[in-house]
Amino acid sequence: MWTIVATWRMALEGVQEASKILAEQGDACDAVETAGKMVEDNQWYKSVGFGGLPNEEMDVELDAGFMNGNTMGVGAVAGIHDFANPISIARRLSREETNCMLAGLGAERFASHEGFERKNMLTDRAKRLYREKIQETKQTQNPYKGHDTVGIAAVDQNGKIAAGTSTSGLFLKKPGRIGDSPVVGSGFYADSETGAACATGLGEDLMKGCISYEIVRRMKDGEGVQDACDHAVSALEQKLRRSRGKAGDLSVVAIDKNGNYGAATNIDGFSFVVMKENEELKVFVTKANNGHTTYSEASEEWLAEYMSTHSALVEKK
Amino acid sequence: MWTIVATWRMALEGVQEASKILAEQGDACDAVETAGKMVEDNQWYKSVGFGGLPNEEMDVELDAGFMNGNTMGVGAVAGIHDFANPISIARRLSREETNCMLAGLGAERFASHEGFERKNMLTDRAKRLYREKIQETKQTQNPYKGHDTVGIAAVDQNGKIAAGTSTSGLFLKKPGRIGDSPVVGSGFYADSETGAACATGLGEDLMKGCISYEIVRRMKDGEGVQDACDHAVSALEQKLRRSRGKAGDLSVVAIDKNGNYGAATNIDGFSFVVMKENEELKVFVTKANNGHTTYSEASEEWLAEYMSTHSALVEKK
Repeated sequence: MWTIVATWRMALEGVQEASKILAEQGDACDAVETAGKMVEDNQWYKSVGFGGLPNEEMDVELDAGFMNGNTMGVGAVAGIHDFANPISIARRLSREETNCMLAGLGAERFASHEGFERKNMLTDRAKRLYREKIQETKQTQNPYKGHDTVGIAAVDQNGKIAAGTSTSGLFLKKPGRIGDSPVVGSGFYADSETGAACATGLGEDLMKGCISYEIVRRMKDGEGVQDACDHAVSALEQKLRRSRGKAGDLSVVAIDKNGNYGAATNIDGFSFVVMKENEELKVFVTKANNGHTTYSEASEEWLAEYMSTHSALVEKK
Repeated sequence: MWTIVATWRMALEGVQEASKILAEQGDACDAVETAGKMVEDNQWYKSVGFGGLPNEEMDVELDAGFMNGNTMGVGAVAGIHDFANPISIARRLSREETNCMLAGLGAERFASHEGFERKNMLTDRAKRLYREKIQETKQTQNPYKGHDTVGIAAVDQNGKIAAGTSTSGLFLKKPGRIGDSPVVGSGFYADSETGAACATGLGEDLMKGCISYEIVRRMKDGEGVQDACDHAVSALEQKLRRSRGKAGDLSVVAIDKNGNYGAATNIDGFSFVVMKENEELKVFVTKANNGHTTYSEASEEWLAEYMSTHSALVEKK
């Protein structure tokens, strides 16, 4: 029973393409990479890859992570500039035994030596949004909103499980900032004996609970995939409130080894995409209800609104 | 009941100094930082701070992490060059809400803006060891041995718990390589409601199990601190062997909120230092026994040998 699940509506086209791989008995790692690349390549999605929003210096610094649940191989890049597909570089690194997580110039040198495609990832639209935000931030003093990391988890027909993430990180982040996305156990985790999970939200808070690891760990200890997601988000949210008085956005998706999926969040409006063997491709929109996340299929209106918000920003001005 | 525990004999002087803080009702965060700084400042210890061994380009790239178990605040720097005390920079970052983990140039810029001490961290001895290793590696093809991260966990008289790490990482690592030490949940974790843990070993493998988080999680679920250490190391070792056919070095220390401590390892010869209220400072040497770690106080001979090995390398040639 193959399944693929991914964070946010933006993953729809990628999940659709990746599903073909899984339907044809392809590999979960190929599926995750394919879905991630399609989001990276799409300039409409302003929090991942090409067209991603820049840091406070107007540099697009990209993070990605990858895990092969058969080998437990982990690869990650952090703060990489001007490579088209960070998730592919992360996957390549997951085959190494050492030096699997690389940041900055070291990551770029590795990617260059391995022949990964160079591409100027800063688009005109991103520059315009950057300039607008700089103006706006002078008033609000709160630059950090929006956090739409794409995270993808898949199980293939051979029972292999993989997970991957890709993001441009917090808009206007400090140069060199690393969030949860390239951090194994926080942004992503995969274990073919159990399942996989991916996170999106405020990376600094997601990391405080190793949330993706915790979800898979709960499944290993017998919780169902939806319970594992709900309990992990809820426990971390409560812990953060007790310790810090507040909690950032925490949203997750997960699959188990039997192809069941789950999602949880502490915000309203988190969306995710799922495709399962013998089922239709679906986009769900979630609602947080006191520690239990409910979701329903996105309406035509919601989908149209999502697209117009995204494409409108491309046309604007 | 205060307690401080740290990885490897090299932490002895730092733990001794930090113990005075704890004995005088001082803060666990101050104790951890003090102990870490003393190891960083000591040029004999060639895997941490000043005199740390360089990467394959002969650059000393330092990693450090810090966690305040009261606030769950996490700070970390990765691949930072020429700052005297990475653990202090990590602690400073743990007070931020965003941009808490910084790598490379971004980390250096932050540290410079905050006025942290600049220092050329590459010593003549490290250069000599680098050149020897380069020659040797041409024969052995296996540069990656030795992994002595200092990890420190402390609980103070007010029940506050903190953890920190500092390392120069794998000798001859690739530029930009990030190991477990600056990664929360892998290299370190602290929660004043439960306890804290730190890891040392092959970072790439420690990260695959979020081992420090897992130890604290096990304690939260009711395991004693020694059992939590043993079970976490043993489970990860077995998982790595099942998935990859082998496991790298995995060593950990931990404390619980009552001041009890534990340690576990899958190698022989891992040492750790502990000081507890109303007890003497002790150095223990461990032995791995099929999933249960035993340890005994280091003999005078062992301690003399440790020091002569370290200082001999300073005098050599």
